[in-house]
Amino acid sequence: MPETQSPKLSQRWKWASHQAISFLMQQGLENPDVLSLAAGFVDQHTLPVEATRQAFASLMADEDRARSVLQYGTTTGSEELRNRLIGHLANLESCEVADLNIDASQLVVTTGSQQLLALLGDALFDPGDICLVAAPTYFVFLGVLDGVGATAVTIETDREGMRTNALESQLQQLDETGQLHRVKMIYLVSYYENPSGVSLAEQRRSEVVEIAKRWSKNHQIYVLEDAAYRELRYDGPLLPSVWGCDGDHETVILTQTFSKSFAPGLRVGYGVLPRALVDPICDCKGNRDFGSANLNQNILINVFDQDLYQPHVDGLRQSYQVKRDAMLSAADKYCADIAGVEWLHPHGGLYVWMKTPDSVQTGFESPLFQRAVRHEKVMYVPGELCYAGPLEDRPRNRMRLSYGVLTPEKIDEGIKRLADAIRHVAST
Amino acid sequence: MPETQSPKLSQRWKWASHQAISFLMQQGLENPDVLSLAAGFVDQHTLPVEATRQAFASLMADEDRARSVLQYGTTTGSEELRNRLIGHLANLESCEVADLNIDASQLVVTTGSQQLLALLGDALFDPGDICLVAAPTYFVFLGVLDGVGATAVTIETDREGMRTNALESQLQQLDETGQLHRVKMIYLVSYYENPSGVSLAEQRRSEVVEIAKRWSKNHQIYVLEDAAYRELRYDGPLLPSVWGCDGDHETVILTQTFSKSFAPGLRVGYGVLPRALVDPICDCKGNRDFGSANLNQNILINVFDQDLYQPHVDGLRQSYQVKRDAMLSAADKYCADIAGVEWLHPHGGLYVWMKTPDSVQTGFESPLFQRAVRHEKVMYVPGELCYAGPLEDRPRNRMRLSYGVLTPEKIDEGIKRLADAIRHVAST
Repeated sequence: MPETQSPKLSQRWKWASHQAISFLMQQGLENPDVLSLAAGFVDQHTLPVEATRQAFASLMADEDRARSVLQYGTTTGSEELRNRLIGHLANLESCEVADLNIDASQLVVTTGSQQLLALLGDALFDPGDICLVAAPTYFVFLGVLDGVGATAVTIETDREGMRTNALESQLQQLDETGQLHRVKMIYLVSYYENPSGVSLAEQRRSEVVEIAKRWSKNHQIYVLEDAAYRELRYDGPLLPSVWGCDGDHETVILTQTFSKSFAPGLRVGYGVLPRALVDPICDCKGNRDFGSANLNQNILINVFDQDLYQPHVDGLRQSYQVKRDAMLSAADKYCADIAGVEWLHPHGGLYVWMKTPDSVQTGFESPLFQRAVRHEKVMYVPGELCYAGPLEDRPRNRMRLSYGVLTPEKIDEGIKRLADAIRHVAST
Repeated sequence: MPETQSPKLSQRWKWASHQAISFLMQQGLENPDVLSLAAGFVDQHTLPVEATRQAFASLMADEDRARSVLQYGTTTGSEELRNRLIGHLANLESCEVADLNIDASQLVVTTGSQQLLALLGDALFDPGDICLVAAPTYFVFLGVLDGVGATAVTIETDREGMRTNALESQLQQLDETGQLHRVKMIYLVSYYENPSGVSLAEQRRSEVVEIAKRWSKNHQIYVLEDAAYRELRYDGPLLPSVWGCDGDHETVILTQTFSKSFAPGLRVGYGVLPRALVDPICDCKGNRDFGSANLNQNILINVFDQDLYQPHVDGLRQSYQVKRDAMLSAADKYCADIAGVEWLHPHGGLYVWMKTPDSVQTGFESPLFQRAVRHEKVMYVPGELCYAGPLEDRPRNRMRLSYGVLTPEKIDEGIKRLADAIRHVAST
């Protein structure tokens, strides 16, 4: 037998490889004694065991229904679930179903909202196509764009989210340099953004839609509204969705997931799509799995029908609010006296975005990360991962701190350790 | 507001679009009174309701475990499940786990085996790369290859599966024409192939592996063994896997699914990968969903641990054997006297492959398909979908008939209707 040869992998794999998430998970596995402020997981103790049991039990009590949920479903997902999702969306939008101006055929159920992000990458982006993103933005979506060879172009962001005048001038500039035909999408995490915790200000929501429509001169430039954290609101204003600002729903793609508000172990998310994208997304999904797990979709149907969903979300919000407050208090207690350390106060979601002194970089190779993981036994997500473009152009002194997983006591301890690490590195 | 513009979709979408599966599903939906010999679904009545209930109940009885299965898992899939899968594979291979010469790190759990097919498409194929396939082959995999812009090159096939001397000479020819560097994979449905029901003969199994290794001159040419139907064996020889013929397991990728042998509604499949492919596949999967549903993987763990799996498979085999026999008897009864109609006798799986007279084409546009669906109210999968290459070079008079879904009585009725349609078209 000849010797084994190396594989000859695709360009797409090269684009997809070396994502930071793998390195982070590896660090977590190799350092089990480290307090992780990095993991974007949800709090294990709040997971809906009893609600899932009840929904499953009633679902499986009827033999016919039980059999049908163990069968293949359709690529688009269960129509019954999609109808429940429309009702749920109407609740979130504080309107009647009829006023939503959509029907179930515009919804596609996916394996978490991550799958929808990936499918949009497939269906819309050729190598070299452009997606406009906030700075910072959700780093896993930057990986999706990498994976299809697309270019993420950064739009300046402040405490009210993506700056719409910066968006306008970036589009102007792309037009002037002959690149407007490559712009496919504007990506926004509209509520309590991962990583910054910032929400897009109300006025900017309609402005983004107006800008996208106006610059759709020769083809539709879509707005992808990732509303993963929408329901994890603790205080602050109740904001309308960007999607709701798009009267004909032909510009904004809305994606939501039950991974944060219910249980990630079900891997159920969904997208509300402009009509023109429904078939293309289903074509791509059909090639990949012919539909997400039917059982899980039906568990969610029963969770809704048995009124198990909203009480769970309400409890979750209380629980996470306590943990957010614990992290902010700990930051006040341990970090307020470190010159150059600042952080944002999120009104929802799972993250606090922290700035270290200019001299203290936070990347995987930095003295701070090494000190934090090896000596202080605490881990965070380096903020530089959350920006597109060349590393040297990115802010290097930011951190994403998650209060999702740890208890309030451990959060306090984690921030204490982190403050010690910052103090140590800042003083050397 | 300006008018809505059309989307500008990607090349990858263009490649992925217009797959036959969508048209087939559409036909099914639009013609609910039609007896479907087309659907590749499994028999609703044999789905494991009680086994799933029991596995779920014990899984959720322990609060800690219940919470952990509702949390995110890992991209690779549950290690506990992967260990069970190795045990299961050892059973199938009739050997001890230690003799398999692999460990759990080479297994990846996917959303059905379809997702693994798609991930291999991503990781291995650039546009224009080549996959060698049997003629006929699984038409959905042809869609996956289309979706990445790859070229499927057909290898002649007989009643013992892909002809290894034809495989050898095709590789020789590709080498001579300077295309060997584009050949990435040989795809085989090794047991009771979809659509033909044929299994690759025992001697050819080791030959395929030897050929792949020998032609891996500058890079590894992989063999993808799709063993979806392996456990649905009714009679005939107990064949070793192609994977088992690959001593170092660096050439053959093995994929299996629980969609046929247990429940498609769980969407759990898996791949056993050469070591060099584990990270690339996980990189691609990480970008798409960070892992398949944890709950479903854990249901399967308990199905194995509570000895619920094998009794279910045994029952399934009995039930499908009756239906296979019903289809073969019906074919004898209604088709034997139609000149030019022939069919194969499968030893397992879900399909009977039938040839119509040369004058009777079977495609979507053909008089036979129209007559069958509109007048006789019976549907099948046109065989021409199951071949790669230009339509005019494909056999046009083949049909895939599935006995998976219908009862024996309905199968009999379906074949009777189909025979009437063939007779009608042949005589006009």
